[in-house]
Amino acid sequence: MNTTEAPLRVAVLGARGKVGREICKAVEAVSDMTLVAEIDAGDPIERLVESGAQAVVDFTHPDVVMGNLQFCIENGIHAVVGTTGFDDERLARLGELLAASPETGVLIAANFSIGAILMMRFAAQAAPLFESVEIVELHHPTKADAPSGTAGRTAELIAAARREANSPAMPDATSQEIDGARGADVDGVRVHSVRVRGLVAHQEVILGGLGETLTIRHDSIDRAGFGPGVLAGLRAIEAHPGLTIGLEHFLDLP
Amino acid sequence: MNTTEAPLRVAVLGARGKVGREICKAVEAVSDMTLVAEIDAGDPIERLVESGAQAVVDFTHPDVVMGNLQFCIENGIHAVVGTTGFDDERLARLGELLAASPETGVLIAANFSIGAILMMRFAAQAAPLFESVEIVELHHPTKADAPSGTAGRTAELIAAARREANSPAMPDATSQEIDGARGADVDGVRVHSVRVRGLVAHQEVILGGLGETLTIRHDSIDRAGFGPGVLAGLRAIEAHPGLTIGLEHFLDLP
Amino acid sequence: MNTTEAPLRVAVLGARGKVGREICKAVEAVSDMTLVAEIDAGDPIERLVESGAQAVVDFTHPDVVMGNLQFCIENGIHAVVGTTGFDDERLARLGELLAASPETGVLIAANFSIGAILMMRFAAQAAPLFESVEIVELHHPTKADAPSGTAGRTAELIAAARREANSPAMPDATSQEIDGARGADVDGVRVHSVRVRGLVAHQEVILGGLGETLTIRHDSIDRAGFGPGVLAGLRAIEAHPGLTIGLEHFLDLP
Amino acid sequence: MNTTEAPLRVAVLGARGKVGREICKAVEAVSDMTLVAEIDAGDPIERLVESGAQAVVDFTHPDVVMGNLQFCIENGIHAVVGTTGFDDERLARLGELLAASPETGVLIAANFSIGAILMMRFAAQAAPLFESVEIVELHHPTKADAPSGTAGRTAELIAAARREANSPAMPDATSQEIDGARGADVDGVRVHSVRVRGLVAHQEVILGGLGETLTIRHDSIDRAGFGPGVLAGLRAIEAHPGLTIGLEHFLDLP
Repeated sequence: MNTTEAPLRVAVLGARGKVGREICKAVEAVSDMTLVAEIDAGDPIERLVESGAQAVVDFTHPDVVMGNLQFCIENGIHAVVGTTGFDDERLARLGELLAASPETGVLIAANFSIGAILMMRFAAQAAPLFESVEIVELHHPTKADAPSGTAGRTAELIAAARREANSPAMPDATSQEIDGARGADVDGVRVHSVRVRGLVAHQEVILGGLGETLTIRHDSIDRAGFGPGVLAGLRAIEAHPGLTIGLEHFLDLP
Repeated sequence: MNTTEAPLRVAVLGARGKVGREICKAVEAVSDMTLVAEIDAGDPIERLVESGAQAVVDFTHPDVVMGNLQFCIENGIHAVVGTTGFDDERLARLGELLAASPETGVLIAANFSIGAILMMRFAAQAAPLFESVEIVELHHPTKADAPSGTAGRTAELIAAARREANSPAMPDATSQEIDGARGADVDGVRVHSVRVRGLVAHQEVILGGLGETLTIRHDSIDRAGFGPGVLAGLRAIEAHPGLTIGLEHFLDLP
Repeated sequence: MNTTEAPLRVAVLGARGKVGREICKAVEAVSDMTLVAEIDAGDPIERLVESGAQAVVDFTHPDVVMGNLQFCIENGIHAVVGTTGFDDERLARLGELLAASPETGVLIAANFSIGAILMMRFAAQAAPLFESVEIVELHHPTKADAPSGTAGRTAELIAAARREANSPAMPDATSQEIDGARGADVDGVRVHSVRVRGLVAHQEVILGGLGETLTIRHDSIDRAGFGPGVLAGLRAIEAHPGLTIGLEHFLDLP
Repeated sequence: MNTTEAPLRVAVLGARGKVGREICKAVEAVSDMTLVAEIDAGDPIERLVESGAQAVVDFTHPDVVMGNLQFCIENGIHAVVGTTGFDDERLARLGELLAASPETGVLIAANFSIGAILMMRFAAQAAPLFESVEIVELHHPTKADAPSGTAGRTAELIAAARREANSPAMPDATSQEIDGARGADVDGVRVHSVRVRGLVAHQEVILGGLGETLTIRHDSIDRAGFGPGVLAGLRAIEAHPGLTIGLEHFLDLP
């Protein structure tokens, strides 16, 4: 970071939500940013302009995020967005809005955990170089879906990388199976979902070839884990006008 | 061990099989035993008596093991047996034979890996003290059955311990599942079977309660891992006349 | 638990401390106990009697705990104590007090995490059955001491178990070492201390013999992990009059 | 691979060594190569030409490898080399020889394990994105050096990546340490060396930031693990004339 520059003026939308509060803390904890506004449902969005915010972080709700972003883009305020619910139509609409404000940047990311992003990226890169790849994801037992969204996405990335490389089918001689033992088949990749009290959110990708295995494991135990990723997004957003999908494009990776 | 005593005279039946060869090496490598006979299919079993064997190790075949044991018991030779296929009828027959030779000991064990035995024992002891228990077993992809026999047996021991302690059902809020994601249900315990090239035989039991997890993992990478368990069986067999099922009864555990 | 009995009346001393607050929540969350008093510095201890407490949990301070316990014992109130600082003199004094109130029970425990207690117990039991044992403990980087207290205690238990069993020295052919690579030597057991942001409190005991390893790992991510252990102490305290050191004596283990 | 081409004609130098034998098996097991010569100490190297070898694999000895390579290069035979002992002088000499045979390729690699190469690469890429990075390497207890060569190399790559990114020093509040607990300091990166019977060669790189950790683990249990890397080298060598240091340059990574 360039320490001679003035701190970036940041506002948080959804500032009283669980994630929003962590983001506020993270922004306040670093010296190259200033938290200038904490806005939540009921607060007038015009406060963004009054506060002189240069960039916002939006962890709100699919119902309000498009209005928030229209206001930001029209006022030349960059946005780092963790809210979900963007379909092709919404992305097209954002593209139009941004075309009229060509210096403004919007980053939309499904995951701000740097560890999770790298786990997916490394798993996909390594997948064609090994005979076998399986995923074990482990979560608290109050989770409704199995596998997790991250595990499903990881499996798709692995499958795509192997198709591209013409990787052969993975070896599996299972002929006697108690139903479910071999996990779910997601695009040809086996995914196993463990649910145990005391866990939070964990995932292991196990890749193996003759005589060796490579395991890439991500452990996330706290919403605070989103902080560094959001800060990375804020630090890079000015240099990336237009629409970016996925924080990985802002990380300095080869 | 009492170093003033003469070394125990040991013979190996099935000495040219994969496990048998490792057992021969293990016996030869220690100073309190002497390997006096290596016998395999086609060799006359009378060589046991000629060699002066005090104890045999039998890793042969269900078709021949009963004949081997009858010969051993009638000649007062102790036996440590890893061969499979013992049903109630066979065990009853061994009981009759041993009744007529009351100083002879026979140990029959499904598993001579000390690590696997302890994993199962500790898992069963701990299971009633946690809300959740699941099993992940990981093996090479040429394995035919899923889950592994060890995983199935571990699940049964866990289930029995929890029933005895009146443990409540494990928490699991899964409502949306891709088929198989939550693994196989073995006696109420979820078991996940990973098959990846480069693995040998591994198992993890994950136990969890509020804010903490306890994981017991066994990694077996070599048949040589049976050696220490067989030696422990040989060292204890003289002091345990009659029939013993399971090496755990010979290990010095509270 | 016997559901026909009235709920146990529990008071918490140190109720506004970090651990105390979790204990209050844990007591309130179960149906076989009632939280009758939350007491902290400045509150009159006589409220214990007024509240009708049958048992207290004390997570206070070495300076006040002896006074608290004298009051409890003299009033026939059982105590489950997580406060530190008990030396031989203090334990002797508690013995005298309890002799005069023979139906009252006091449990003093350094660790209420059931997972940590089992990790130590299993590690000590298994240690004489393997050639090698090492400890890797992993904590957040704001921790002042290395190794952790739990790792030091685990190493001592392992060393004692191996001495008792006349286990030989562990194999180690290291002849070229960068200073510190092989960890700290605690009573002959190697202990490695990892300090990484994002970790909380974790420990792995790795035991190995020919061809196999057994790993016992404890992960603690939340003070709430003390809750189940404290509840177990409360449930058993009435049946254990006198002084007990260590929660393990109350857990139903062989 | 292009299945319409004739199989690559491969010779192995050091064919009766431990690694050499595994390489011979690996070459024989695939359909796009033919093993045309197995050469070891005492065999005339001219057999390479007679056999029509297009590429050799050299796992021999520093004393003979330069002679082997001179012969190969002068005869236009590509070489994939796992033998050690190449200093700047030797590399310069190879450069001269290759200048005179511009279509011949020589690959020199310290490590043919694809898993180990990826572990090092991913660790170095991720290191600047996290606050903390430490290495735990685990090996059999007959190993002489601690840390392992791979761990030392990994630490250097991590340190270089963090210097380049101006990463701040890692957090570490340790103020009370039993000597060695915090491991060896290799270029500012802490490395812990575990030595336990039953292990082979394993390494874990643990990276952590607020609320999350990323762990990259490599397990190598068999020399056969070199096979796929050597085959990858053989398949790519024709397309890479000149001198290449490190198999990573041949793997299809972004």
